[in-house]
Amino acid sequence: MSKKEVSMRKMNFWGWGWADEAEPEDVAKDKEMARFVAESYGVPEAEPLTRPRVEEFSIPDSRVQIPANLRDMCTTDPHERLIHSLGKSFPDIANAALRQLPHATDLVAYPEDEAQIAALLDWAADDNIAVIPFGGGSTVCGGVDPDVGDSYAGVITLDLRKLDQVLEIDKTSRAARIQAGILGPDLEAQLKPHGYTLRHFPQSFEFSTLGGWIATRSGGHYASLYTHMDDFVESIRIVTPAGVMESRRLPGSGAGPSPDRMMMGSEGIMGVITEAWMRIQDRPTFKGSIPVLFKDFYQAAETVRALSQSWLFPTNCRLIDAEEASGVAGGEHAMLVLGFESADHPIDAWMDRALELVADHGGSFDRSVLEKKDSNKAGAAGQWRNAFMQAPYARSRAIACGLIVDTFETAITWDKFPEFHAEITAQMNKVIREVTGNNSRVTCRFTHVYPDGPAPYFTYSGLGTTSGMIEQWREIKAASMEVVTRLGGTVTHHHSVGRDHRPGYEQQVDPLFRDALQAAKSRLDPTGIMNPGILIDPENRKVGQTGTMADR
Amino acid sequence: MSKKEVSMRKMNFWGWGWADEAEPEDVAKDKEMARFVAESYGVPEAEPLTRPRVEEFSIPDSRVQIPANLRDMCTTDPHERLIHSLGKSFPDIANAALRQLPHATDLVAYPEDEAQIAALLDWAADDNIAVIPFGGGSTVCGGVDPDVGDSYAGVITLDLRKLDQVLEIDKTSRAARIQAGILGPDLEAQLKPHGYTLRHFPQSFEFSTLGGWIATRSGGHYASLYTHMDDFVESIRIVTPAGVMESRRLPGSGAGPSPDRMMMGSEGIMGVITEAWMRIQDRPTFKGSIPVLFKDFYQAAETVRALSQSWLFPTNCRLIDAEEASGVAGGEHAMLVLGFESADHPIDAWMDRALELVADHGGSFDRSVLEKKDSNKAGAAGQWRNAFMQAPYARSRAIACGLIVDTFETAITWDKFPEFHAEITAQMNKVIREVTGNNSRVTCRFTHVYPDGPAPYFTYSGLGTTSGMIEQWREIKAASMEVVTRLGGTVTHHHSVGRDHRPGYEQQVDPLFRDALQAAKSRLDPTGIMNPGILIDPENRKVGQTGTMADR
Repeated sequence: MSKKEVSMRKMNFWGWGWADEAEPEDVAKDKEMARFVAESYGVPEAEPLTRPRVEEFSIPDSRVQIPANLRDMCTTDPHERLIHSLGKSFPDIANAALRQLPHATDLVAYPEDEAQIAALLDWAADDNIAVIPFGGGSTVCGGVDPDVGDSYAGVITLDLRKLDQVLEIDKTSRAARIQAGILGPDLEAQLKPHGYTLRHFPQSFEFSTLGGWIATRSGGHYASLYTHMDDFVESIRIVTPAGVMESRRLPGSGAGPSPDRMMMGSEGIMGVITEAWMRIQDRPTFKGSIPVLFKDFYQAAETVRALSQSWLFPTNCRLIDAEEASGVAGGEHAMLVLGFESADHPIDAWMDRALELVADHGGSFDRSVLEKKDSNKAGAAGQWRNAFMQAPYARSRAIACGLIVDTFETAITWDKFPEFHAEITAQMNKVIREVTGNNSRVTCRFTHVYPDGPAPYFTYSGLGTTSGMIEQWREIKAASMEVVTRLGGTVTHHHSVGRDHRPGYEQQVDPLFRDALQAAKSRLDPTGIMNPGILIDPENRKVGQTGTMADR
Repeated sequence: MSKKEVSMRKMNFWGWGWADEAEPEDVAKDKEMARFVAESYGVPEAEPLTRPRVEEFSIPDSRVQIPANLRDMCTTDPHERLIHSLGKSFPDIANAALRQLPHATDLVAYPEDEAQIAALLDWAADDNIAVIPFGGGSTVCGGVDPDVGDSYAGVITLDLRKLDQVLEIDKTSRAARIQAGILGPDLEAQLKPHGYTLRHFPQSFEFSTLGGWIATRSGGHYASLYTHMDDFVESIRIVTPAGVMESRRLPGSGAGPSPDRMMMGSEGIMGVITEAWMRIQDRPTFKGSIPVLFKDFYQAAETVRALSQSWLFPTNCRLIDAEEASGVAGGEHAMLVLGFESADHPIDAWMDRALELVADHGGSFDRSVLEKKDSNKAGAAGQWRNAFMQAPYARSRAIACGLIVDTFETAITWDKFPEFHAEITAQMNKVIREVTGNNSRVTCRFTHVYPDGPAPYFTYSGLGTTSGMIEQWREIKAASMEVVTRLGGTVTHHHSVGRDHRPGYEQQVDPLFRDALQAAKSRLDPTGIMNPGILIDPENRKVGQTGTMADR
């Protein structure tokens, strides 16, 4: 289907990862998991759904007529359309398990360059077709769901995986021009021979792209200081329906509001990000990481506050509550994973002062772990890290048992944190029990920290029923957004708004700003075809939820 | 004129500082300065203009009728109108010296709260009056000049000095809610009893305000890492003609494009910033600063590159070329002022590694200066610092002799820096000589540095004629903007765009982004009354320069 040879390796439509790497179905093992899940949540039994196959989905015929000049880069193959109609949110995975496809994209396009993207947007604008940019499809917030309301003649999904090259490296300035459709591992593989790294490792690293990271303000490797992708962007190119827009490559500027900052977080509503100049790093040569245990989570949080206000800027400062860390830290202690790294200098002075602060606050640790090679991968912290990377793979099997398991992440100033955490935890446990009638589990960790507050990340679960779990999840999700925004948090710190967080976004962001954003979008996307329903409705179109969360 | 007692101390309209602190006129001394200036630039003689008085200006009658409910907070006093019709740009000061007022504001308002600001904006929108928000009036880019074209019935200037309080301090999160009209010294004085500081010290510190810093993306104390005011803003309140807009107070967020980042750098075109939650600091207790000398400026720049890419984040990393540093470093050596500070930990490890890098790159220094108390204020670096703080005061006297003396600042990636610097220096010397027919002086320093490039700050001078100097300056200014933008720099790193940089801004920023910005503005300011001519024209109004710089 294309002149350019690009692996057309298929994503797994029903769960995390590549289709060809999915574990073979093992019905006995799944039943065993269902028994375990049922027992854990105090339920007599749970019956797992079997693994779905493409043929089991009722996928409507494509509604669009591909113009002749675009035919080579487009496909209406049902399997491709299925993969691209689902992200990795709870309802996406639950729908896949249930053989349901609430909204199907009509076509998947694999453009190879900006001219092809522009041609696709021209066609879509002329024919009133909604366009969804698609990076790795790892969204956990409904960012790629073709749920665009009923005012469009169809929906096409632009898969950008063919824009996968590091185009240029400026060693002097330590920056690289990189195409937006490149997946994390490919990006690092292309930088590595030159001694560089972007050092952006979100949990979705293998299945997300540079363009997706920029469009969603992804949060990555660094726990402090440089937390969001935003900090690493030097300039952006974006193909909008009104033309190509490019920002100037600059280390810093004060010339009016930042153009890049209006594109970062735009989640596809302004256009398609095609490339960016990115600030890259020398590969770190000095590294150290140490687990620290605390008897009390809030005491641990106070320690993290001191660390974040010290301007030592630890690379890793992940605090994990006792229950979430129980597999590696015994269940009695909250665990802080504290790490520093540098490509320039030994990190001893930084680590020494950080551990002084930790000791002052009552944390306990075994310094000898720092003597080990790759201390960041060793011991309890390393075990937790491995479990963390495997978690997304196990999730779809758990969901097939009716387990409602999801996460949400936020940020809050330190003054509000203890009450915020306590009330969210209580409220979530309450709503999960009410909705499912069974036990609940709610845990918390910090993914990123700032001098003025942490970014807490909550993981929750409760056992629903396979037939009712999507509706049950919706109730729980609405409650989580309600409590987070009511208590002053953000509805997302780095997962993005997508379609799922829109009610919370509307609570949180001033309607005047949303109006201004809508107006700005109208200039770049005059017919309102770009990713409708994300963040705001296009002018004169009704797509998403508006008003209070009760409407949802 | 107001219930609330606020010092109505007057700014000096013809130069820097407070009117009551201006040196008394000394004609003999001014003549001596003129002789010195003439000699320096190879001219037989120069005749200084005498100091202007308010009565010498022809100030047109105010064109606006103040509604009764607003009368208490408004004045049409000619002295007040004169002060508020001029900033501190070269043409502002030259016009003052020449007893010229090209554009006069019709009225100065001193609102005390948001309700009064809203009432003023309502009146202005109803009566088609342009509104210019005024902080300290220290703009060097024409940001407050009432040059709004001929489509308005008048211009009013909103002086925000009565919004001068630190309203709330959150010690836990280290943040404070602060009114936007507060001047630098008042802000620090109100934080100090609590042990905190904002630590934002632009050269204009005494005569600029929090709101002005945010609206112009001011650059301050920190040479690396946290360079712009942007980094210290937690949330903003802004009164727009469409209503009050407020962002949520958050340590970090990924919920769509940042609302704050659209207001930062908006320079009054969106509305009037009234208050902000700001990230404040513990007062630093560990400080060290050391001057480093280099025989070659580009070798020094390479050293700064290494420092900026080390992630040591020096607080001060100001590189000053040999000519600019000649008063304190002999004229043969470029001088780097390298400093670290911390409220948490001794800075030795940071300074040690930085000095290793410096030594590796051939810089010479005397470590013993670090033993001195207040090393940051001692020796050559301290002398330079004092001269730097006094420079704005001397400038108006020099301009009264016909000296065209100005600065411009930019940023550029490291790969382009040497050619950028060489070509700008050559081009500026050439154009100054051509325009003035006399000698020229062009020097450079770095004010801020990033891993991917420096922010070079150029100071230039040439001796014009008092009667022709504004036109001569315009030619030189156009040339500086042309060369900076042609070579890939930004037309401003932290001085702002104002009216003076608009042609360069238009070269630099994609027209599609400017369209989007105009649309966003239209929602917040539907009748286009807010600071017209800054950055962009309001929709359906023609105010400023558009197109190429040749139009200017």
